[in-house]
Amino acid sequence: MFKLDVLVKLKKDVLDPQGKAIELAAKNINIKNIYSVKQNKYFEIIVEKVPNKKKAEEIVEKLSKNLLANEVIEDYQVIGSKKI
Amino acid sequence: MFKLDVLVKLKKDVLDPQGKAIELAAKNINIKNIYSVKQNKYFEIIVEKVPNKKKAEEIVEKLSKNLLANEVIEDYQVIGSKKI
Repeated sequence: MFKLDVLVKLKKDVLDPQGKAIELAAKNINIKNIYSVKQNKYFEIIVEKVPNKKKAEEIVEKLSKNLLANEVIEDYQVIGSKKI
Repeated sequence: MFKLDVLVKLKKDVLDPQGKAIELAAKNINIKNIYSVKQNKYFEIIVEKVPNKKKAEEIVEKLSKNLLANEVIEDYQVIGSKKI
């Protein structure tokens, strides 16, 4: 089995309401010095029954394109892959 | 200014409905070999007007405890901090 991690980030200039809400909430509970907060998604994926890491990466690439990221507003990157 | 990244993960054994939904959706669009998907949160925080990295880390620690993570079901880790 292989474990791969995928980070999905909003594209630059796309509004991030969750991040904004945290910025505001921080002010409200008196945590100062926060300039900005951006919230992204981080997926941990375990791929089974594949012969090698390359094949696992292909599958995760397909999964990312089709399900994990909305490429209109988000970018994704596979940031780690290892045999487990 | 300092940029710090915080990864918030569900604790082991806490149900992850978003991850489960992706596993099911993958099957439905015929992406095979996915054993499991876990969805986590990844925050990018910029801290301003602090004298040093230690102080920035303290603030982000406080933010994580109070707003980013629900420590009943989630763990957090500050996974990077750098001057920008």
